[in-house]
Amino acid sequence: MSFKKHQLTSKKQGKYFYTIGPYAKPILSIESGDSVVIETQDSFGDKLKNENTKPSDIEKLPFVNPVNGPIYINGAKRGDALKITIESILPKGEQPRGTTCLLSNFGGLTGTDEIPMLNPPLPELVRKVSVTTDGVKWSESITFPYNPFIGTIGTSPLIDSINTLTPGKHGGNMDLSDICPGNILYLPVQAEGAFLYLGDCHAVQGDGELCGVAIEIATYTTIRVEILKRWEIEWPRLESANFIMSIGSARPMENAARIAYYDLIKWMTSDYGFDKWDAYFILTQIGRVHLGNMVDPNYTMGAFIEKKYLP
Amino acid sequence: MSFKKHQLTSKKQGKYFYTIGPYAKPILSIESGDSVVIETQDSFGDKLKNENTKPSDIEKLPFVNPVNGPIYINGAKRGDALKITIESILPKGEQPRGTTCLLSNFGGLTGTDEIPMLNPPLPELVRKVSVTTDGVKWSESITFPYNPFIGTIGTSPLIDSINTLTPGKHGGNMDLSDICPGNILYLPVQAEGAFLYLGDCHAVQGDGELCGVAIEIATYTTIRVEILKRWEIEWPRLESANFIMSIGSARPMENAARIAYYDLIKWMTSDYGFDKWDAYFILTQIGRVHLGNMVDPNYTMGAFIEKKYLP
Amino acid sequence: MSFKKHQLTSKKQGKYFYTIGPYAKPILSIESGDSVVIETQDSFGDKLKNENTKPSDIEKLPFVNPVNGPIYINGAKRGDALKITIESILPKGEQPRGTTCLLSNFGGLTGTDEIPMLNPPLPELVRKVSVTTDGVKWSESITFPYNPFIGTIGTSPLIDSINTLTPGKHGGNMDLSDICPGNILYLPVQAEGAFLYLGDCHAVQGDGELCGVAIEIATYTTIRVEILKRWEIEWPRLESANFIMSIGSARPMENAARIAYYDLIKWMTSDYGFDKWDAYFILTQIGRVHLGNMVDPNYTMGAFIEKKYLP
Amino acid sequence: MSFKKHQLTSKKQGKYFYTIGPYAKPILSIESGDSVVIETQDSFGDKLKNENTKPSDIEKLPFVNPVNGPIYINGAKRGDALKITIESILPKGEQPRGTTCLLSNFGGLTGTDEIPMLNPPLPELVRKVSVTTDGVKWSESITFPYNPFIGTIGTSPLIDSINTLTPGKHGGNMDLSDICPGNILYLPVQAEGAFLYLGDCHAVQGDGELCGVAIEIATYTTIRVEILKRWEIEWPRLESANFIMSIGSARPMENAARIAYYDLIKWMTSDYGFDKWDAYFILTQIGRVHLGNMVDPNYTMGAFIEKKYLP
Repeated sequence: MSFKKHQLTSKKQGKYFYTIGPYAKPILSIESGDSVVIETQDSFGDKLKNENTKPSDIEKLPFVNPVNGPIYINGAKRGDALKITIESILPKGEQPRGTTCLLSNFGGLTGTDEIPMLNPPLPELVRKVSVTTDGVKWSESITFPYNPFIGTIGTSPLIDSINTLTPGKHGGNMDLSDICPGNILYLPVQAEGAFLYLGDCHAVQGDGELCGVAIEIATYTTIRVEILKRWEIEWPRLESANFIMSIGSARPMENAARIAYYDLIKWMTSDYGFDKWDAYFILTQIGRVHLGNMVDPNYTMGAFIEKKYLP
Repeated sequence: MSFKKHQLTSKKQGKYFYTIGPYAKPILSIESGDSVVIETQDSFGDKLKNENTKPSDIEKLPFVNPVNGPIYINGAKRGDALKITIESILPKGEQPRGTTCLLSNFGGLTGTDEIPMLNPPLPELVRKVSVTTDGVKWSESITFPYNPFIGTIGTSPLIDSINTLTPGKHGGNMDLSDICPGNILYLPVQAEGAFLYLGDCHAVQGDGELCGVAIEIATYTTIRVEILKRWEIEWPRLESANFIMSIGSARPMENAARIAYYDLIKWMTSDYGFDKWDAYFILTQIGRVHLGNMVDPNYTMGAFIEKKYLP
Repeated sequence: MSFKKHQLTSKKQGKYFYTIGPYAKPILSIESGDSVVIETQDSFGDKLKNENTKPSDIEKLPFVNPVNGPIYINGAKRGDALKITIESILPKGEQPRGTTCLLSNFGGLTGTDEIPMLNPPLPELVRKVSVTTDGVKWSESITFPYNPFIGTIGTSPLIDSINTLTPGKHGGNMDLSDICPGNILYLPVQAEGAFLYLGDCHAVQGDGELCGVAIEIATYTTIRVEILKRWEIEWPRLESANFIMSIGSARPMENAARIAYYDLIKWMTSDYGFDKWDAYFILTQIGRVHLGNMVDPNYTMGAFIEKKYLP
Repeated sequence: MSFKKHQLTSKKQGKYFYTIGPYAKPILSIESGDSVVIETQDSFGDKLKNENTKPSDIEKLPFVNPVNGPIYINGAKRGDALKITIESILPKGEQPRGTTCLLSNFGGLTGTDEIPMLNPPLPELVRKVSVTTDGVKWSESITFPYNPFIGTIGTSPLIDSINTLTPGKHGGNMDLSDICPGNILYLPVQAEGAFLYLGDCHAVQGDGELCGVAIEIATYTTIRVEILKRWEIEWPRLESANFIMSIGSARPMENAARIAYYDLIKWMTSDYGFDKWDAYFILTQIGRVHLGNMVDPNYTMGAFIEKKYLP
């Protein structure tokens, strides 16, 4: 048997999507085991081209975080999971091709739509930076590493359609930097064919994505997709060379931590033979938590355990 | 000009919906000013017929809170609002036709999907009660008043589709007892034609809907719908004989209160001539807050001011 | 047996307190059944005398909300409760004697110490208003009713001492308008002699105390204090002519609601003979919630049930 | 000038404390620069000696987390900071000397006092484990590393006294594993002499201290204490060889993250010359967050930046 490598170019994509659901027509059909090279736009639809443009002039909710897809995976059914191996993420476009900015009403240290404040808004500031696979040049003295990952990736809910700003059980805008080349993401399948969407890649991002905007880039992102039959998972999961992680998205933030740890206990008991209370005890002592975002409509956290503690 | 009174019977409805979005085909088209008599199912699809049935046997997420609709309102466009006058809510079906129950993993004083706990679940208990317009007979000694209202009512988001368990900017499962006969609900229009859905009526409910299940009933609900052209509102609003109210839905609960009060200040300044800081001061002294639900994926609160303080 | 009526004048008080604990020397000793007339300062220590004074010039944390006390109640022991009947609250001082204001970093719709934001602060605005028992004159066209209550009242924790800005199990800065003349407040006794403190009266306040500052007044407040032997309560409770209420203070706000409802179920089962699940069901249908404050370090809510539903 | 090394033995300590405030008599006076070897009890006062003891039989709130102190640092005044270098933490007592357990009403995945639930409680389970500086022997197949740290350490508030279960601006029960040998903790001084308390050491703990009880141990803990004159800090800060960290404690958890990042921006601007918006941007891209506890009355998070990004 041989697997195919598909190209999902901007041209083939045509219209990008801003909501993840079962109501769009698939743009591409693939088989389990196939890989896809995807030409993703940045979270501003590649439109924030210089530091003099005001973000509020070009981006209006809900039209943020354009995603490619939906990709139809033949044979994926409710109760299965997708295994998505992230093979590479390469920056594209003319330099300076990385973008971050302050939005007046979005971010971790400002009032927002859901936490309305009467304070005056933040200034709208835009920073354009040069991005290569060697690093992100912030200033003469500071260069950030190039640690790219996929900010928004999800499968369709069963009957809902969820905007690309919001993470949840379906994945979505998790903004969790572990969803990076070399790692494997598992997503639940709800709709027949899974309907996979992704985009919104980041060249680098800190824990929490504090101001709400990482170093946003357009990319060529390569993933390989397999179906895991009848592996019914409720929330996204992730695997690296060294650990397994469950991912929760919720508000307030403690609920994201609870969801992630609770799901990790479920995983340890169902797949690794742990007793429930033993898993609870062990994670108390060596469990780890990674904050994805503290700015989106749901906050995202991953709870993980190193593989060396697994049998 | 004369207005029409439409009948949206169960038969005409056919399939009920569990998600509020722009992707379904309208079941009925009406003009601004028309009224509709709607045959609503209870939140269990009228299937919880006796106290020996386990709720978990008949209700699986996301298939709760079936709603009628979508109703297409001719001429409604993005930036308009719907003015929905609730004329009457009459209980239907054979006695005992009211239902409440404990669900093992839902409610205000139990772990849930979003607040997962390792504690053993609650027992699944079902209570069927007689409901008439004179009252809800709870026991030999206790009769609750019949204070019916619409638990779930919303207009379609622009591109999202939101399950009928979740309240938000679009309305949805607010479970706020002010949405009752005699009052007027205002909802934002995002999709052309508004796409109005409603159902999940309650015979009576306390603040917060503590256990997660009010006295659920099937009904004949009569509403009158008008378009308010170019009244762009972000969140649902409500008007009674005595007060005006803004309605916020969010987590944690303080954000619902913030959204509601913030929107009420906006309303007072834009439509009633108040200075922003004066409105903030005045609401500090005589503003009122009503808790809708403390159990759904977003909590709902209404903030209101008595009309006697308005010019 | 006859009861005494004590006078706790400003002069007798001398130094007011800003923390509620067991470490101060009692200023007054009384017997169960005695009443006390207390000369309370307003929350600014009566120092915000005109609209040109900046609050930040006269008030520095933790020196806000001065309280009278501690009052030692002879015979009060851990495991008892205090029954505090609020007899009257009369405004004192020269007109305009009511004060409200905007603080730059405190309130319901602004960033605060615990929710830090990078937005510019709110303006510091002060409003002085005339207060009589007939009403609070806000402007030519608006008069608020005079609905006075005690903003801060508490008994000492066992070993902690809690600043007068923070409400909790001990009572404290609940800012709940039900603590008003005609009603009875119950507080747990932890320290021998109870150590009762109170102050921070408000002439009127809306639900949530939105901007953080009600109409603050100095008063003559008269309370009657009795010991209820061996009535071990965990949180403050309250009784009016028409209802019984449990009071929770916590963050996020949903936890205040949970605490209040949970304690009310405990009260209904222990003192009124309800079955636990029946109480949970009944409160779901006719329980009521009243928001005290949404601005203090803990938010306060009271959950109540009308006495007509009690046996 | 020469510095002294003090011994604060259990015998010298005598009575341990359960509240951190200015009202106790100092047990030891030291000079800036001195070090102290402290014999700490474990969080159960060393009383949970075997797996058949029920925690609820020996530990009653507020008598958990006994701490040594207060230590009076001569010359420390309000507006100064303490610089506490943690030199070593050595386990003491007979094997198996490490203790963890499930409490029926405490932890990250159970209802608690502040999040009351009607679910049945968790079982009370106790695990005793052997602890050496080489590791914590959990089972035949699993050994945890010995990564000791101080769970509870704080300076007195100005007028409050805060139980040793609660973290805050004063430090306290942060349960943050970065407070470990080799690192430096900075604490604000509020009371004259600082009044330093500490105890509740852990042999190892995961992020969040999931079940609420790490591997609790009695220890010999050695710290060195210096006064930093007029370095006015609002929240605890920490420094390791590789990073600087600000520490926030609050509920809900997002507020702990906000406080930590906000304070880190303040630190970067005041001490390292960053522009405020530049610091906000930079932390968005390379800021890191470490979860301390998700179980105490306030949740604790540290936000940090690697020193290589500082000038």
